[in-house]
Amino acid sequence: MELRNVKSPEDIRNLSVRELEDLAQQIRTAIIETVSKTGGHLAASLGTVELTLALHSVFDTPRDKIVWDVGHQTYAHKLITGRYDRFHTLRQFGGLSGFPKRSESPYDVYDTGHAAGSISYALGLAKARDLNAEDYNIVVVIGDGALTSGLAFEGLNNAGELKTPLIVVLNDNSMSISENVGGISKYLTLLRLAPAYRSAKARIEKILDHIPTGPSTISLLRRFKGSLKYFLFPEAWFEALGFRYYGPVDGHDIAGLKRVLAEAKALKEPVLIHAVTQKGKGYSFAMEQPEKFHGPGPFNAQTGEIVKEPAPPTYSQVLGQSLVKFAENNRKIVAITAAMTDGTGLKPFKAKFPERFYDVGIAESHAVTFAAGLAQGGMIPVVCIYSTFLQRAYDQIVEDVCLQNLKVIFAIDRAGIVGQDGETHHGQFDISYLRHIPGLTVMAPKDERELINMLWTALSIDGPCAIRYPRGCGVGVPVEDAFDSPEVLDVGKAEVLCRGEDINILALGSMVYPAIEACEKLAQEDISAGVVNARFVVPFDLDTVTDLLRKAPLLVVEENVQDGGFGEMVANAVGFGQDKIHKLALPKQFIPHGSQDRLRSVYGLDVPGIVAQVKKLLGR
Amino acid sequence: MELRNVKSPEDIRNLSVRELEDLAQQIRTAIIETVSKTGGHLAASLGTVELTLALHSVFDTPRDKIVWDVGHQTYAHKLITGRYDRFHTLRQFGGLSGFPKRSESPYDVYDTGHAAGSISYALGLAKARDLNAEDYNIVVVIGDGALTSGLAFEGLNNAGELKTPLIVVLNDNSMSISENVGGISKYLTLLRLAPAYRSAKARIEKILDHIPTGPSTISLLRRFKGSLKYFLFPEAWFEALGFRYYGPVDGHDIAGLKRVLAEAKALKEPVLIHAVTQKGKGYSFAMEQPEKFHGPGPFNAQTGEIVKEPAPPTYSQVLGQSLVKFAENNRKIVAITAAMTDGTGLKPFKAKFPERFYDVGIAESHAVTFAAGLAQGGMIPVVCIYSTFLQRAYDQIVEDVCLQNLKVIFAIDRAGIVGQDGETHHGQFDISYLRHIPGLTVMAPKDERELINMLWTALSIDGPCAIRYPRGCGVGVPVEDAFDSPEVLDVGKAEVLCRGEDINILALGSMVYPAIEACEKLAQEDISAGVVNARFVVPFDLDTVTDLLRKAPLLVVEENVQDGGFGEMVANAVGFGQDKIHKLALPKQFIPHGSQDRLRSVYGLDVPGIVAQVKKLLGR
Repeated sequence: MELRNVKSPEDIRNLSVRELEDLAQQIRTAIIETVSKTGGHLAASLGTVELTLALHSVFDTPRDKIVWDVGHQTYAHKLITGRYDRFHTLRQFGGLSGFPKRSESPYDVYDTGHAAGSISYALGLAKARDLNAEDYNIVVVIGDGALTSGLAFEGLNNAGELKTPLIVVLNDNSMSISENVGGISKYLTLLRLAPAYRSAKARIEKILDHIPTGPSTISLLRRFKGSLKYFLFPEAWFEALGFRYYGPVDGHDIAGLKRVLAEAKALKEPVLIHAVTQKGKGYSFAMEQPEKFHGPGPFNAQTGEIVKEPAPPTYSQVLGQSLVKFAENNRKIVAITAAMTDGTGLKPFKAKFPERFYDVGIAESHAVTFAAGLAQGGMIPVVCIYSTFLQRAYDQIVEDVCLQNLKVIFAIDRAGIVGQDGETHHGQFDISYLRHIPGLTVMAPKDERELINMLWTALSIDGPCAIRYPRGCGVGVPVEDAFDSPEVLDVGKAEVLCRGEDINILALGSMVYPAIEACEKLAQEDISAGVVNARFVVPFDLDTVTDLLRKAPLLVVEENVQDGGFGEMVANAVGFGQDKIHKLALPKQFIPHGSQDRLRSVYGLDVPGIVAQVKKLLGR
Repeated sequence: MELRNVKSPEDIRNLSVRELEDLAQQIRTAIIETVSKTGGHLAASLGTVELTLALHSVFDTPRDKIVWDVGHQTYAHKLITGRYDRFHTLRQFGGLSGFPKRSESPYDVYDTGHAAGSISYALGLAKARDLNAEDYNIVVVIGDGALTSGLAFEGLNNAGELKTPLIVVLNDNSMSISENVGGISKYLTLLRLAPAYRSAKARIEKILDHIPTGPSTISLLRRFKGSLKYFLFPEAWFEALGFRYYGPVDGHDIAGLKRVLAEAKALKEPVLIHAVTQKGKGYSFAMEQPEKFHGPGPFNAQTGEIVKEPAPPTYSQVLGQSLVKFAENNRKIVAITAAMTDGTGLKPFKAKFPERFYDVGIAESHAVTFAAGLAQGGMIPVVCIYSTFLQRAYDQIVEDVCLQNLKVIFAIDRAGIVGQDGETHHGQFDISYLRHIPGLTVMAPKDERELINMLWTALSIDGPCAIRYPRGCGVGVPVEDAFDSPEVLDVGKAEVLCRGEDINILALGSMVYPAIEACEKLAQEDISAGVVNARFVVPFDLDTVTDLLRKAPLLVVEENVQDGGFGEMVANAVGFGQDKIHKLALPKQFIPHGSQDRLRSVYGLDVPGIVAQVKKLLGR
């Protein structure tokens, strides 16, 4: 059957396993072809092709519900649920989302993007089904990486208690985005090996009969007992939580998957199916380098080369490099990431200071409380987490770090608009959820050089600090000398770049350079606009701003939602009100996907947008 | 030895077990006596007396660190670490905190109050110790209730990976605050029973030899295998996470505890000691009713009767009762709590609609995502969580509820100042962390009657709603008829109670009645002040406020931190600035413990405070 003729899962339910395997190949080709042009979550989606086909074959979707965790593994699901024709628009502004969206299809039931919520959500669906006396099936697909998250644990634990029928497919590719970590990951490895132990059972028993007694025997027996446990009771961990365990099964064997899914469906209780898959399956480059192909930009499908425009280093890279530099002379510095070693630029730090580097897995709450403990113990932890994922640690920032006034530095990557990953990934709220927390210094650099100086400044501050910076490349200023002789910024002091006669623009972080350029454009139209680089959200430079306001009105520009944001803070601190203080920020809504440039343009957070806003304010 | 002569744990290290047991009795007496006057966390602290003595005997505190999870079980710890003389000031303004505070004592290492962070924090301490080449011991004491929290799981999982010496004492009293829930809780029950299985081993084997084969045998064998697993490998669950498991041990047997703690100390690896304790141990009333004596107010130590001033029902009770009323005619309503069935007033709901009631344990993140799933499945979930604990679900509110625009109702109890529990428990941030989330309606009732109407209104709104209301009694208005014929409020409309010539007070929630009273007082001094009950934070009633501002300035009063709060929002929305809009709110700092009245007075959020503020603003 031709993939393009699959209009809905109905069309695949009568296909033979052979035909499904053929379809899997076509799906892989379509995914590789499209993602090589659009960029996207390649490796994860290639890993779930067979699983997707098996699920839609065995279950009566959309009546039965598939709840995808994270949702970046759903390209095959999209291709066979009526979205083949639009698949080339993937992740483009106005096109298909890279994640499930209920507005796109009745086959999508959970608009997600953050990991590990699927079990909790599915359990809610399941109880709603029971209360409404309905009887559809609910299947969760969750990666082993997400099992490091406490939210997944909370969901499993409660599902095990409530005992309603719910099938959880553990999509175990032994990766989250970086390599997996944690005790549970080691346990899963043992489970994957369990069948081998089974076949070796007789042999092991024979060996045991013949070993002499002595200290080495004891250690051998102890190791054996460790294996025996998972050999006899591989389900122990999941059964303790109330789930029946099935597995491990080959996640690329459609016939096998269909069999075990059908069995699980018949059971009518909480079941966990442990499916072992390979990230990037069927595309050699992605299989060899799954981290590189986790979410690549456009690439050459034939050679596996990522298309790279020549560009300055990213903010993440600069952060990572400066951490390495500073850590060379300060052995107190430690770095923490939550399954984003590469994304946050920490690979060089990990390589150079493995003993001072912690990837805690997808466990942002833990990352922050762990950092608090490190700080209490005398270290200086730098917690590198994306703005949107740090939302998961709001309580720990308040209670464990700021309440105790501990010196923890938050390097908040991907603040503001992130682009193609869309709604769930934009860092649009961090100013609003951080600036009211007592004792927390909050900064945003105008460029990568200032990022270095802000990190250096944070190291000099006796208390918690947050630095938020955007996704993507810096503006291209030289940074080498800043690594070697960084500057301590004047805490709470804004940088007046130029004063305007008609208006001043108080720009935060990513908005400073566009504001400068806007001023140049405005000058050509005889409008005298000044630019102030805010640098600090907290403490706020009231003096400078009050002084500026004496002469001209102020436009505050930020890449954060307006509500609770920087502009509101400035207006309140100054108190001049609407006639003198104006705000340009993201509107209070969830921002869709699209390129960063496109989205910034849509919301007026770029040079033309600032120019237009100033002219409007001045009535020009 | 006399308890009053114990100046530090040094003094108890050479005592015999008999002497320690005697000391335990004195500690119990001191705790019961003091808490009967001050109120406090009685049952938990009575349960850890022996454990506390054993810990301080075996470990060289304060060099060795004891990290108390939650911290409400630390009264014995306080009594033997130099705080006996001040113990009568417990929980009073300016007195000892009911929780560990590093500022109080070098024996306190973690200022806590929220559950489940201890393992993460201790792991951070442990890694700092290793990196600094120090060699002290670190012991966590965590309740079994906290094991339902994902944060505890994340900590265990990462600790199992990092393999540094760390002792976790699982203080298993089979209670969190309500009864425990979840698969893990059932597993712990099995572990508690494991020794019984052990002694019965021979007997079971004999029985197995004699049973005939047949279908009943299979079911028997299966049940037996379930038991066998925990009999052979009770450690399976914890060992899968990388911990060595010891237990269960009697948590009231000082000699036994000392033995096992000394063994664990020698091991130099992650160890979990499963200590079984009894909440309220040694005080019959608390043993019989541990939930009632979890955090009682003052009580009669002889009779166990809680001292109750005659008072109107609490907001929590009214919320619970109205939920019951409304759920009688709306079978879509379900209620969710996170281990606070009684605290949130849900006991009657649980009794009446057990199948529509969910206590998910200390798992706020899960509670919210679970609610999202229920809403997606067609139910109307009401999530009842304290303001401070809802901080744990900020990300889930944003991503799983609001992004999907699901009809989930948040009943946010304990908003504003909560009183004696202090810093970690005040609900001082919720307006700031909620009002910027797109699509979320946010309300605050002026009294318990309006709470009923707001819940009723929320039921009529097609999207997520939050209602925040204070801890404690309502103002005493009649509510019975409101239960039966509740009113749908005009969404986004404030209630103008009276208009002032000189000033108007826009009061939010708990501040409305004090504002009314303040106006009466001001009238006596010929100041004409009006009062507007804001009702809604979002959507904001711009028209009414703009209209009022035409005639007089405005004072916005709220029981939330000023930064990012309601007053800031009003000032921004209106834009009149400092000369016309004034704010009275909590300062940007962590608020200490003390009675609600006392604290409100300190921060000017009461009648005299409002009167004074108005007079100051008017220059009178």
